[in-house]
Amino acid sequence: MERATNSEAPLYLKVAQLIEDQIRAGVLRVGDRIPSIRSLSRSQKVSVSTTLQAYFWLENRGYLEARNKSGFYVRVPVAELAPEPKFQNSNPAPAEVDVGDMLTKIMRAVSDRGKVPLGAACQSPVLLPYHKLNRITRAITQKDPLHSSYYQFPPGSELLRRQIARRSFDFGCSFSAQDILVTCGAMEALNLCLRAVAKPGDVIALESPTYFGMLQAIESLGMRALEVPTHPRTGMNLDVLEHSVKKHRVKACIAMTNCHNPLGYILDDDRKKALVELLAKHQVPLIEDDLYGDLAFDLERPKVAKAFDRTGMVLLCTSFSKVLAPGFRVGWVEAGRFRDEVERLKFLTTIATPSLPQLVVANFLESGGYDRYLRRLRLAFSEQVQAVSKAIAKYFPSGTRLTRPAGGYLLWVELPKAVNALKLFRQALAENITILPGQIFSASGQFPSHIRISCGYPWSDDLDRALLTLGKLCEKLLR
Amino acid sequence: MERATNSEAPLYLKVAQLIEDQIRAGVLRVGDRIPSIRSLSRSQKVSVSTTLQAYFWLENRGYLEARNKSGFYVRVPVAELAPEPKFQNSNPAPAEVDVGDMLTKIMRAVSDRGKVPLGAACQSPVLLPYHKLNRITRAITQKDPLHSSYYQFPPGSELLRRQIARRSFDFGCSFSAQDILVTCGAMEALNLCLRAVAKPGDVIALESPTYFGMLQAIESLGMRALEVPTHPRTGMNLDVLEHSVKKHRVKACIAMTNCHNPLGYILDDDRKKALVELLAKHQVPLIEDDLYGDLAFDLERPKVAKAFDRTGMVLLCTSFSKVLAPGFRVGWVEAGRFRDEVERLKFLTTIATPSLPQLVVANFLESGGYDRYLRRLRLAFSEQVQAVSKAIAKYFPSGTRLTRPAGGYLLWVELPKAVNALKLFRQALAENITILPGQIFSASGQFPSHIRISCGYPWSDDLDRALLTLGKLCEKLLR
Repeated sequence: MERATNSEAPLYLKVAQLIEDQIRAGVLRVGDRIPSIRSLSRSQKVSVSTTLQAYFWLENRGYLEARNKSGFYVRVPVAELAPEPKFQNSNPAPAEVDVGDMLTKIMRAVSDRGKVPLGAACQSPVLLPYHKLNRITRAITQKDPLHSSYYQFPPGSELLRRQIARRSFDFGCSFSAQDILVTCGAMEALNLCLRAVAKPGDVIALESPTYFGMLQAIESLGMRALEVPTHPRTGMNLDVLEHSVKKHRVKACIAMTNCHNPLGYILDDDRKKALVELLAKHQVPLIEDDLYGDLAFDLERPKVAKAFDRTGMVLLCTSFSKVLAPGFRVGWVEAGRFRDEVERLKFLTTIATPSLPQLVVANFLESGGYDRYLRRLRLAFSEQVQAVSKAIAKYFPSGTRLTRPAGGYLLWVELPKAVNALKLFRQALAENITILPGQIFSASGQFPSHIRISCGYPWSDDLDRALLTLGKLCEKLLR
Repeated sequence: MERATNSEAPLYLKVAQLIEDQIRAGVLRVGDRIPSIRSLSRSQKVSVSTTLQAYFWLENRGYLEARNKSGFYVRVPVAELAPEPKFQNSNPAPAEVDVGDMLTKIMRAVSDRGKVPLGAACQSPVLLPYHKLNRITRAITQKDPLHSSYYQFPPGSELLRRQIARRSFDFGCSFSAQDILVTCGAMEALNLCLRAVAKPGDVIALESPTYFGMLQAIESLGMRALEVPTHPRTGMNLDVLEHSVKKHRVKACIAMTNCHNPLGYILDDDRKKALVELLAKHQVPLIEDDLYGDLAFDLERPKVAKAFDRTGMVLLCTSFSKVLAPGFRVGWVEAGRFRDEVERLKFLTTIATPSLPQLVVANFLESGGYDRYLRRLRLAFSEQVQAVSKAIAKYFPSGTRLTRPAGGYLLWVELPKAVNALKLFRQALAENITILPGQIFSASGQFPSHIRISCGYPWSDDLDRALLTLGKLCEKLLR
């Protein structure tokens, strides 16, 4: 690794070396926040711009990462990592989605708990607050014994909706309880929104790659997916999006602006605002999927695109599945001007959301400690992502590229072109390892040599061995 | 009331009077089973045919009702009841459903727990086994603390599916656990089935009147409803159905063959079989909604139409919402040859069904006592239906007609033509009473003077007063 300084080095490199030495000595560790620019400038008696230059130097070499408004953090040096995936621009055309049969088989395989879990976006139970959730569940059966005897008709539990509204300030909104509609997870919310704003035959723009379930849902509703080229750090190409909106009469756009699945990026506020304004200009509703938003590695919870919505055209969907309890199926939607239609469709699709999980989540949020818990959870995921990234850099063939997630626990890996991801998936399965092949993340077959790796489980020897095996399988497929 | 006998009466009338006297004296009460034909013949030393004649005489006069294979039971005499609704035949045409906005307003009104609950099909919590369900819930939080930490991916909890399969013999089927797919209530099951067998623009045949949510679901999926004239005792007119299937290229048929909502009938096995065979002949899938099947007043659980399915073209949907816990949202479907497609759609719509309610229902079924509990519940509903029927006969204007439900807890009331049901709904609401107007049970405006009355709550002075008020409101609307 390149060293930061020598005797004739400029001043900024000397400052950089101070930090580098602390990292090498283990004083500053992966995930730690380094001193603020102002405080280091003061203590080292150098100008703010010199310190900033030093931090950028360290960032460029991968020792640090800048996080939105919250400063610089120590990360695994880029030199030890594979480079980021390439961005390829293209002119998209609407496609009928047809990855259905393959998906069913793959999902059955990856939901088998006996396998090494690098496939499904599931997290280890040890990270989740199930003890507290169980305690609350027992308390509710005593305090509110009739919970199961009534339908919790839409919009859902008022207690829960009040708690969600209270938290909405954290991501730049100010919802009231009346704005919120509780759903059976984010997936129901997304489906209801799609059905509220578009009809069969309509064109839906979305990121590429994107969550495969979304592609399938669009297909199952008889709509057509338009895949907009998406950069691994800066998201959808807005020029292409605007062109497509005009050319293909796009009826809605779906986007994950925070902790994208599978790319892991968080759009900065300017990009979120630009996306919202571009779509509003063309009267196209934006369905925002914020499923992983609470898992941003930043100290500060990133804003949602909805925060920049001035016309009620953004429908924000999310759930507690990735942060509290996947088995609860408690999600929600703030559907802007489409609120009444989404509520009507909710009643017609599942009548009501189960009462007990709603009440448990509401009581969990009310009892406090959610933010403290989230901090621990985010730190764990950040460490797991770093550990898996390092192992991939170590074991996978040269030419492998991978993302730098800003949150969540998913990695997107670009393998050398000769590796067919579906073949790799099958061979890995034979070794009791699950991954997801890139093929299912696109309706138009964009990612035949990509895979998605889930880092939902704490680092272990099993994971290390599994990644070593995956690396060897890749090497073999190269020959 | 006509008396059964005088001195010159034939022998069968003398036998009939024995029973009649016991009923009048209160020895035999509403819901009681009267002695079997064989035992009464023996004790009275008359022939079996004379006793049978006596029972038929009593049945025709409404003292008794015959129940499938389980004998004769005391009921409220027909002479004290209003006659049954009229059946009107017609030639149906497919219709775009459009009762949406009205429905949302009505559903918001009837889900208000402060009102007299004659509207929504909800039952009193006092009838439900919530104590036992809560006990089981607490046990699961101890025994299986990780229940919330995993997705219970489709097809759902194996324990629950095994219990359902075990019970399937009771309604004439022999499912295996693999055949069952757990859903978020019957409504999700019905929606998934519709989407699996038909697409937007397709024509769906169903009963008229029918459950309003089903009409709306069809509309929301862009399909068209074809309302088949339906007799209050014998169900859909099969000649009209067959004609319609040919003429309008019907893509699926939805039917409730047991405890129909709102008509309350149970089709006999021959009619179920005829329905299944007719549709199979034309390759039309039958989506069977058996939501109230466990609530048949007969001692023996009636068969489902699915029991006569030879080709995998019947998709059976139901749930535990009407018998155990509406707030749990646990339903299931046996989708015949469409199983895989329904499972795929389930994953794309809500990913998974919540784990905890599934486990609680499974443990409840496994622990035994479900049949004993069901017997009590059915008796309670039978008595409630009889009590409300009597009050309607007493308080409502002459010309009122009402159904004789064979199960469930819903009554369908035909008011004199001059009464507009929607007006009555609004005036009743002003008096804090909820009912459902007939208008929402048809896409083509068939039932402007009908109302549906729910008898889900034990008889009380409040209900008596509410029905008196409703009767008076009807009288006023007649002037």
